[in-house]
Amino acid sequence: VHISELSAEMAELGNYRHFMQKEIHEQPRALADTLENVLAQDSLQANIFGVQAESILSGIESVYIIACGTSFHAAMVARYWIESIAGIPCSAEVASEYRYRDSVPNPKALIVTISQSGETADTLAALEHAKMLGHAHSLTICNVPESALIRQSELSFLTRAGPEIGVASTKAFTTQLVALFLLAITLGKLRNKVSREQELLHMQALRELPNKIQQILKLEPEVIKWAESFANKQHALFLGRGQHYPIAMEGALKLKEISYIHAEAYPAGELKHGPLALVDKEMPVIAIAPNDTLIEKLKSNLQEVRARGGELYVFADQDAHISSEPGVQVIRLPGLGGYLSPILHTIPLQLLSYHAALQKGTDVDKPRNLAKSVTVE
Amino acid sequence: VHISELSAEMAELGNYRHFMQKEIHEQPRALADTLENVLAQDSLQANIFGVQAESILSGIESVYIIACGTSFHAAMVARYWIESIAGIPCSAEVASEYRYRDSVPNPKALIVTISQSGETADTLAALEHAKMLGHAHSLTICNVPESALIRQSELSFLTRAGPEIGVASTKAFTTQLVALFLLAITLGKLRNKVSREQELLHMQALRELPNKIQQILKLEPEVIKWAESFANKQHALFLGRGQHYPIAMEGALKLKEISYIHAEAYPAGELKHGPLALVDKEMPVIAIAPNDTLIEKLKSNLQEVRARGGELYVFADQDAHISSEPGVQVIRLPGLGGYLSPILHTIPLQLLSYHAALQKGTDVDKPRNLAKSVTVE
Repeated sequence: VHISELSAEMAELGNYRHFMQKEIHEQPRALADTLENVLAQDSLQANIFGVQAESILSGIESVYIIACGTSFHAAMVARYWIESIAGIPCSAEVASEYRYRDSVPNPKALIVTISQSGETADTLAALEHAKMLGHAHSLTICNVPESALIRQSELSFLTRAGPEIGVASTKAFTTQLVALFLLAITLGKLRNKVSREQELLHMQALRELPNKIQQILKLEPEVIKWAESFANKQHALFLGRGQHYPIAMEGALKLKEISYIHAEAYPAGELKHGPLALVDKEMPVIAIAPNDTLIEKLKSNLQEVRARGGELYVFADQDAHISSEPGVQVIRLPGLGGYLSPILHTIPLQLLSYHAALQKGTDVDKPRNLAKSVTVE
Repeated sequence: VHISELSAEMAELGNYRHFMQKEIHEQPRALADTLENVLAQDSLQANIFGVQAESILSGIESVYIIACGTSFHAAMVARYWIESIAGIPCSAEVASEYRYRDSVPNPKALIVTISQSGETADTLAALEHAKMLGHAHSLTICNVPESALIRQSELSFLTRAGPEIGVASTKAFTTQLVALFLLAITLGKLRNKVSREQELLHMQALRELPNKIQQILKLEPEVIKWAESFANKQHALFLGRGQHYPIAMEGALKLKEISYIHAEAYPAGELKHGPLALVDKEMPVIAIAPNDTLIEKLKSNLQEVRARGGELYVFADQDAHISSEPGVQVIRLPGLGGYLSPILHTIPLQLLSYHAALQKGTDVDKPRNLAKSVTVE
């Protein structure tokens, strides 16, 4: 049995060496599948979240998103989107924190849970806790139909990433982000914060997303070169601001999980409040910085650590004016992402961690001590 | 001039080797001074925050705390206190994040800023941004009278920590926490969430605080032993839950700032969602875990990394049933902290970073690339 399972897995892998690599490359398809029914209409329908979605979502006053690990990073991006696009106050909290503290419930808040498996123990317990406190409305974003979170939530959105085998989440994350973006637009429409014109622009951006990601995947050879210089490092510092700060966190988590490099993320503005002391040639700084102003600030912050060998690696977009120079390396993503920029910037970070792990020879799909779904506390 | 300044500084230092050490040991005094006028009354007076405080604080619907670095950690603890004690929704955000994103203003929110110097550039800009968005009410907690934040805020509380010379903040942080605790009780009283009996218990706990900290400072020899085993590490993982999670963050930041050890903090429940893969003999795990249940969970989580040499260092309280065993070391704090437990647990973490830095021979009071007050972006 074991042998035939292996063979089945090998067959599934096709030309890929690992499931993680396969799943990274499947993202254009996973996103297109997740969006297929949604974009088949000529406007976004609230009922993609359930038949009662329109009436429930019209009445909510705030959004509270609860998740763990990678899903929590999706929650953090969604907070920026929901406040900016829908003008609704939004908080994101780690499930194990929420369930064990005294919080102030608001029956008019929407509790949103996110989990690839829909079975994450802390997230399930947090949802139960929220209901016990009097929260009436819940929505979940999962990748597994009939999962516990879907059964226990009033509304739901099923991502169509397909089975995710690699322990380090990739396509589940980007499809979660798309689902959350749809939620932000839907909430914005219901509150008249999103005009018909804006809605059409958002829909167009979503239609172009799979193809944009396909273009970004072509950066793999450039990312491999960076991975080669990373694999021998013990540390890395990831910086981002705004909607890209959670992506810096996700990039750091990926590197931790599979390459065992101690990568940590900070909001870029906090660099001078502590972590700058750590930067030297053993701790490269990776900036997710589509914005020129931020890059300039980072360059000036890092000026003083150049003497200690501090190196800056920047993921910029096509309009950024930065170019590589001693101590600063740049990979430029094609196109401009707008609100979807966090999704685009996720891709090279996934590739970076994957190739760093390959260099180190770790067990990419099954990193030590981590389980695919954390179904116990 | 340079020589005489040095002599003046040396004289001020007394028997201490560094200002940081002196400032750690000054905390019982700094806290007593900060509380002196407050506790001279037989009840907590809202006017400790300003003459209009009672009317302003009675009308607010939520609290939004904005700060950078160590002050942000104080903000995070305050969020737990304000939601738990006053039953008012509270958010904490890094100033450089808040000022650059689209947020949803609420004119009935109280904007709270925290800064030792009262001159932190991002925090000042964030306050200005909040006002521009229509926020009418602001309160600041600073250690420097007549500072820009005090001038630009409607209400204020001046901590009486005295001048803080060491770049790594110690006594400013614990006095900020006390000020924020006073704010939580005051808000709770104004909303009838804090009974007269509870108020008296809180005031009693505050009266006992300086002496409790004096007792905890006596743990220094035990902490020095831990510091000796830490100084040769490259990494450390700090874990906490609830009101102790920000203290884990503060402990990690201190170690980063002055000993250049790459310490990172996680909410304890997130360990299995990634960082557990990193733990080995080079990455000790420090848990701020007064609660037995949490300790048991951590021990079971870490069981599997014992084979890789993973070591757990626990700060527990006197009622915890944990004792040292192979792979697990325990320092027990005298007494029980209740809501003030985060303040008590800060002290040994300050001592740990100080003595780790001493072992490494770094410039404790002036760590590389960091400024005492970050008055530029």
